[in-house]
Amino acid sequence: MKSLNVAVIGSGSTYTPELVEGFILHGKSLPLKSFRFMDIDAKKNASLAAFARRMLKHAGLDVSVLETDNLEEAVNGADYVLAQIRVGGLSARIRDEKIPLKYGLIGQETVGAGGFMNALRTIPEMMKVASAMERFAPEAWLVNFSNPSGIVAEALQNHTNVKSLGLCNIPITMAKEAQRLFENEAADCDFIGLNHLVWMTGVFLGGKNVLPDMLEGGLTFGGMKNVPDMGFEPELLRLAGGVPCSYFNYYYYPERMLHKCLSAERTRGEEVSLLEQELLNRYQSPALEEKPEELEKRGGAYYSYAAVSLVDALENDRRAVHVVNVKSGGTTGFLRPSDVVETRCLVGKNGAEPLSARTPPTPHVVSMMQTLKSYERLTVEAALTGSYETALSALMLNPLVGDYHKAKGALDEMLLSNRAFLPQFEGYFLREEKR
Amino acid sequence: MKSLNVAVIGSGSTYTPELVEGFILHGKSLPLKSFRFMDIDAKKNASLAAFARRMLKHAGLDVSVLETDNLEEAVNGADYVLAQIRVGGLSARIRDEKIPLKYGLIGQETVGAGGFMNALRTIPEMMKVASAMERFAPEAWLVNFSNPSGIVAEALQNHTNVKSLGLCNIPITMAKEAQRLFENEAADCDFIGLNHLVWMTGVFLGGKNVLPDMLEGGLTFGGMKNVPDMGFEPELLRLAGGVPCSYFNYYYYPERMLHKCLSAERTRGEEVSLLEQELLNRYQSPALEEKPEELEKRGGAYYSYAAVSLVDALENDRRAVHVVNVKSGGTTGFLRPSDVVETRCLVGKNGAEPLSARTPPTPHVVSMMQTLKSYERLTVEAALTGSYETALSALMLNPLVGDYHKAKGALDEMLLSNRAFLPQFEGYFLREEKR
Amino acid sequence: MKSLNVAVIGSGSTYTPELVEGFILHGKSLPLKSFRFMDIDAKKNASLAAFARRMLKHAGLDVSVLETDNLEEAVNGADYVLAQIRVGGLSARIRDEKIPLKYGLIGQETVGAGGFMNALRTIPEMMKVASAMERFAPEAWLVNFSNPSGIVAEALQNHTNVKSLGLCNIPITMAKEAQRLFENEAADCDFIGLNHLVWMTGVFLGGKNVLPDMLEGGLTFGGMKNVPDMGFEPELLRLAGGVPCSYFNYYYYPERMLHKCLSAERTRGEEVSLLEQELLNRYQSPALEEKPEELEKRGGAYYSYAAVSLVDALENDRRAVHVVNVKSGGTTGFLRPSDVVETRCLVGKNGAEPLSARTPPTPHVVSMMQTLKSYERLTVEAALTGSYETALSALMLNPLVGDYHKAKGALDEMLLSNRAFLPQFEGYFLREEKR
Amino acid sequence: MKSLNVAVIGSGSTYTPELVEGFILHGKSLPLKSFRFMDIDAKKNASLAAFARRMLKHAGLDVSVLETDNLEEAVNGADYVLAQIRVGGLSARIRDEKIPLKYGLIGQETVGAGGFMNALRTIPEMMKVASAMERFAPEAWLVNFSNPSGIVAEALQNHTNVKSLGLCNIPITMAKEAQRLFENEAADCDFIGLNHLVWMTGVFLGGKNVLPDMLEGGLTFGGMKNVPDMGFEPELLRLAGGVPCSYFNYYYYPERMLHKCLSAERTRGEEVSLLEQELLNRYQSPALEEKPEELEKRGGAYYSYAAVSLVDALENDRRAVHVVNVKSGGTTGFLRPSDVVETRCLVGKNGAEPLSARTPPTPHVVSMMQTLKSYERLTVEAALTGSYETALSALMLNPLVGDYHKAKGALDEMLLSNRAFLPQFEGYFLREEKR
Repeated sequence: MKSLNVAVIGSGSTYTPELVEGFILHGKSLPLKSFRFMDIDAKKNASLAAFARRMLKHAGLDVSVLETDNLEEAVNGADYVLAQIRVGGLSARIRDEKIPLKYGLIGQETVGAGGFMNALRTIPEMMKVASAMERFAPEAWLVNFSNPSGIVAEALQNHTNVKSLGLCNIPITMAKEAQRLFENEAADCDFIGLNHLVWMTGVFLGGKNVLPDMLEGGLTFGGMKNVPDMGFEPELLRLAGGVPCSYFNYYYYPERMLHKCLSAERTRGEEVSLLEQELLNRYQSPALEEKPEELEKRGGAYYSYAAVSLVDALENDRRAVHVVNVKSGGTTGFLRPSDVVETRCLVGKNGAEPLSARTPPTPHVVSMMQTLKSYERLTVEAALTGSYETALSALMLNPLVGDYHKAKGALDEMLLSNRAFLPQFEGYFLREEKR
Repeated sequence: MKSLNVAVIGSGSTYTPELVEGFILHGKSLPLKSFRFMDIDAKKNASLAAFARRMLKHAGLDVSVLETDNLEEAVNGADYVLAQIRVGGLSARIRDEKIPLKYGLIGQETVGAGGFMNALRTIPEMMKVASAMERFAPEAWLVNFSNPSGIVAEALQNHTNVKSLGLCNIPITMAKEAQRLFENEAADCDFIGLNHLVWMTGVFLGGKNVLPDMLEGGLTFGGMKNVPDMGFEPELLRLAGGVPCSYFNYYYYPERMLHKCLSAERTRGEEVSLLEQELLNRYQSPALEEKPEELEKRGGAYYSYAAVSLVDALENDRRAVHVVNVKSGGTTGFLRPSDVVETRCLVGKNGAEPLSARTPPTPHVVSMMQTLKSYERLTVEAALTGSYETALSALMLNPLVGDYHKAKGALDEMLLSNRAFLPQFEGYFLREEKR
Repeated sequence: MKSLNVAVIGSGSTYTPELVEGFILHGKSLPLKSFRFMDIDAKKNASLAAFARRMLKHAGLDVSVLETDNLEEAVNGADYVLAQIRVGGLSARIRDEKIPLKYGLIGQETVGAGGFMNALRTIPEMMKVASAMERFAPEAWLVNFSNPSGIVAEALQNHTNVKSLGLCNIPITMAKEAQRLFENEAADCDFIGLNHLVWMTGVFLGGKNVLPDMLEGGLTFGGMKNVPDMGFEPELLRLAGGVPCSYFNYYYYPERMLHKCLSAERTRGEEVSLLEQELLNRYQSPALEEKPEELEKRGGAYYSYAAVSLVDALENDRRAVHVVNVKSGGTTGFLRPSDVVETRCLVGKNGAEPLSARTPPTPHVVSMMQTLKSYERLTVEAALTGSYETALSALMLNPLVGDYHKAKGALDEMLLSNRAFLPQFEGYFLREEKR
Repeated sequence: MKSLNVAVIGSGSTYTPELVEGFILHGKSLPLKSFRFMDIDAKKNASLAAFARRMLKHAGLDVSVLETDNLEEAVNGADYVLAQIRVGGLSARIRDEKIPLKYGLIGQETVGAGGFMNALRTIPEMMKVASAMERFAPEAWLVNFSNPSGIVAEALQNHTNVKSLGLCNIPITMAKEAQRLFENEAADCDFIGLNHLVWMTGVFLGGKNVLPDMLEGGLTFGGMKNVPDMGFEPELLRLAGGVPCSYFNYYYYPERMLHKCLSAERTRGEEVSLLEQELLNRYQSPALEEKPEELEKRGGAYYSYAAVSLVDALENDRRAVHVVNVKSGGTTGFLRPSDVVETRCLVGKNGAEPLSARTPPTPHVVSMMQTLKSYERLTVEAALTGSYETALSALMLNPLVGDYHKAKGALDEMLLSNRAFLPQFEGYFLREEKR
């Protein structure tokens, strides 16, 4: 069995020990030769690398951990590249959360105006990762969980030649919860949607879909840590014919969520900032040789499990079903074949093949997916071209934005405050300065 | 040349003299045998019929004017049926305008939550008109301008066997304004969209589309009387690649429009109520033998012209281009062939054949049309079935509504206050009472 | 583990011992309670049942074998229904082979005019099987390999509520040959097409498609016994971007195949008739307790393997990939979602989910599939309605027929000579008699 | 009113006097400044130009007639370019007719293997015309009737930037015949199909489609001179839901047509050759000042009428309905928007806008159009790229070819004998020589 080289882009993240633990647990089926930890923050990277070395040693594994701030060095010869970058760091996230609020818009790192700005910052950096891989690791797989994961996948899969998959922990978390609820690990869950706009539309047990009977009860699944879990009305479950993921709190109750954001003492980014500092301190303790429990508060349940299982399916040709973000092919019937969706896939050596939903989508689902995908396509175009008009056009289609005055106000201020991270918009900035 | 029988459903409307004048002006190409004036308000009907008789006599035309409150009598033997009904009268319209405001939603008779309720009241009555025609005038054409005209057309063309066309005065008003602006009556204007969601996407002069050059200037066309004309930013024109109709004030500036509605002394319905009273008084003057100028304030510019020209094209096989609401066939490429759109058509004896847009729609146009058409399809289904869930599902897709709490609040109160006009929802009301 | 009841419809077939052997080999994962052998030929059925009992006893399995000529009795309580009927027996097949030849058309039991007549006879009988299952075994799976298997699947999956899959041994035979050729059992083969119109368009080894390099060589795969294997020119492989199945001899070399048929001493049906007689004699020997080697000459390599593996995947939720005939969903992009195709599927407890081809189809493949599917749809309609015009319309679209005079000549004579098996055409026969 | 410059490419054709007469008859609405006669055969060109001058003078029109063998000179400053070229002349046509017969294939100049070879010769030359227009007359319209007109239109409209329309006299001839039959010039005929694969699927009189009632009678319309008119069986009319054009003799009775070709004393090309010689002699008579009656035998009924009416509709913004070859847009629903079809169009200053068929196409029509369009797309690709494999692939999809051995035999010999006219295949020829 071949030993693998795994590059982690953004290894300074506090999530990294999750990943390391995942590979330790899969040590037999996924023997590693090296980790390549790449981060632009050398100090954090050193700290995480040191902790990773202790974890690996503790597990009795002989795996080198390379530290670097050079993308090409990290990627060269890698078999898998796992990306979890946050461009601009938490301070950029906090700006994404706060600026939109001034204009009456929800600020959040993946949906609405904040997620949009995050995409504008993240996509160009991920294109660089892909470009390095095209040259130095053309056969490697790129597994991305940098947010907004779905939009990043839309960009990578349509604008690079790299083999890549977009990953999110929401579907697996919802599936695990369904399996727990039905006390049956064989429960086979259907999902339809886009990343952070996904519904669980089926729970198959013994050949029967038992979900429809459940929809009367209004049960909520998969309350992520990042968004408060409020429970959806049974009516909302029925109009979608399924269980919405927790991010639908933003789409179904925008007014309430806006007020929540406005009245919160701290944004989620600010909270995370505190948590991260604690975790980083904790990681520096030489005595710590395993993933600490505190990490779970951070909100990435099952991320490592999902990521390493996916690598296992690819590497060992498992031909197993995973829910990932890939081009839809013709599987939805109402989006373009090139549109990236979050869907069940058969995953093996040759990649991820999308499966059609086994239950026909309701008009509600079709319409929301069409609207959000129109927004996502334009967002990718804006991120790649730096066109102000395309950016405005994208925001106008986002159902959490809509209003021209709000869109323009938030966009102009966000662009300006992110100038350092938006080289593709430099032409726009220069034109504005000349006015 | 055959003399025609023309039924006017809702003839008690103050617009009726417009129609009568239109037929007087087309006397040569469209000789009439009779008008059949049908209205449930016998008093108004008598007044309008008397005025029509004076107008016809003044014009030297020998046309009988039948008054009736019986649909079958009006329709039997008719060659054309023109419908301009307002179910529940102006008081229902005023409720449509006021109730949504309580929940933070725009109230308006054709768009948003108010237009939705109007559709629920109007569609069942128009189905009765169609049903009477199927039995008593199966060869006749139904031309409808009852609002919301596009949604009514969606219902009539997909759920009856009657030959029908949906009409609105917005496209012709915008085209006239373009022709005036370019000082060229041959200017040939392209339109794409749905009723009250339509863009003028081309102005062809001598084989060239001169609109793109104009889009920089941000000119506004066709400021209807019903909505204040504020002018759209050039950016908004460019993202649609065309000039939006005035109703886009609601879609592009919802916050501003909401505040306008909230701060207005009177709703448009209340204003119209005053105007109507004046007009009705005026019509009763025995000396009045022609359409009074005051009628123009009412806001239906070119309605009569559009309607009578359309009848002329049908009757005399003109094979001329009119913008009407018909099934799209495959002409858009992104809606279903059965979806009704507002589009240029070749109109002759055999009906109206939709033409494809000559300029490809921008992503903005595609997405907005898809979203609104999803809403319209569900609205028609709710209006026909009386399903509360479908009604809620429709409102949730309307971009002027969205929020679950607002949608539900407004829907519940509007349904209750419209119970007399919603027989299809009686099952729902009874279930609610039993709770 | 649940013991299964398996009904075999058409159990008098000489192939039956294959099936019995298959279940014996899968005894552990698929424990049987009973076989229900249903055939209208009681004598053959008795002979096959007796042989099956000897085989089961020899294998040490306690499985009852019920003999019946009653469909409901066979189906009632069955978990799986396997159908392998031949309506009209071999004498009907021989007529299918001979009549078309008189009109210059290829006679064959699955393609061309002969296969068409076979469909007209077989579909109504399979509808009866489905109808019995709807009443007496609504949860059971129907696995059909009665020919023409693809057209029968098109009928069953679009016109009954039974859970069914269409099976053919061609894809598995081609895959086995590819695995043998590459000396690698993990070779993962892509297929695209319809039944008996299928191409192997990929052979994935270690994540790479190695087929394109092979296409230069013009290798032939899966030479079935039923059609002579002549080898295809490399040009033909390249225009399809894959290896055609052996039935393409008819589509690519119709003239040569027609001459072969015309000059053959015996039709394939006549040969099979002799083989079957030998086999039936052999089966009667009380000493015979295992499938005799002679059976392999008959031409159904891997049928039993394919069928029983498929039952295993369904029953034991294997979530394994099988190539079967199912509705395409949106997976092809150029056929209707309801069109049945022969494609890779993920098969488990909940049925078979179609996978998209991993290599885009060439224009040649698209066009041939569209043409043949148009033919198949009309064939199903003709088989269900008994419409002469639809039958003629179907034949005119078959690329092996085309010519009106040939189509009409062959159709008229075939219908007449099959009258006993075509109750749905009785109206047509009566009208013809009255002329 | 602007005076026009009209270029005629291939003016040495004996059809040219038809065109000249057409412009003479439209003298008032289409005043000409000049004709530019371009032909590579200077002698024929001189003769036709001289005759044209006599015709124009006789009509009292002051129009110059320029003779040239230079494409750029002809096109420079032209308002309309009419193309009627025959690459390789009649001797190439006669080869197209004769070579396929050796291989058991129909030889004809527009359908089957012969039409295919004609396309390979004609498309590159028409690309040169378009290229000259792009540089020297970018605003001019190109109206092409060079055969195979539909395939040439497919190439021009998808691979050049020139404004062009493909024209054929079949639809207008069929419509005229229908109008004659119904004794009503207002009969409004529907057509669906591709060039030389077109059906008349509706005849609307007073708002009713009267064709369905007629289909029982099996009437034939529009028997072109080029193909013998044999009358189609009512069954064939019903399966298409319309009247096939005369070229369907090839598709419906290929065997009979093949025998007709094989047993004919002369091919149509050889007959035309004799006719042309007579006509050319006739044209040289200085006394001849009008189009001679003999020209009608040649077979181009209504060509001039169709062409000049079309120019009139374009130039004078008639917004009239013409049947021409244009991109389908979404109008068929089953072809690609970029596929060129022969369809009713609204024609005015801005070009030709396709109209949807008013009667839904039968499965027969859909399938035949899909098959032939697949063939046409590949033919255009082969003509543009000179790929031997694409050429073979195209021929294999042509329903009049199919068989590999016939296709290859005919293709190889035709290519070789047309080498002088196929510069794009020179690479292929060189590779073959080296073998």
